[in-house]
Amino acid sequence: MSRKRKSQLSARERFSGNVRAVRQANGLSQESLAAAAGLHRTYVGSVERGERNVSIDNMERIALSLGVSIIDLLKDDDES
Amino acid sequence: MSRKRKSQLSARERFSGNVRAVRQANGLSQESLAAAAGLHRTYVGSVERGERNVSIDNMERIALSLGVSIIDLLKDDDES
Repeated sequence: MSRKRKSQLSARERFSGNVRAVRQANGLSQESLAAAAGLHRTYVGSVERGERNVSIDNMERIALSLGVSIIDLLKDDDES
Repeated sequence: MSRKRKSQLSARERFSGNVRAVRQANGLSQESLAAAAGLHRTYVGSVERGERNVSIDNMERIALSLGVSIIDLLKDDDES
């Protein structure tokens, strides 16, 4: 999800990459995830690009809509 | 840290309780933690009371200042 070494990834980078990976693995569009989480599609897109300093409440809404825990979305690839 | 069952705690509730617990375990005042994280003391206090919808960047700053990972601060008591 980045050419940086995993240990250098910020929490924001790990979260954004994991949201996209889990969403795609679940076969969901950004629209579907956004609708399930009560968020706007463009907001989900900007979260996945790491452009948003996303809040803990929205992190949890996204995690619940993806069927994973907020902790799962903060792990490095090699921890998931 | 709450009379709710652990499984019912929101991410915000788990984070706020864990920040306070780790800060106190480290013998740090709210002032010291705030200074280390580049935040205001009253902000740290409101995070610990669960009043703030804290952002992922500030969550990471707090975790780094406490010497733990953001994931540690989101765990339930029985996972830490």
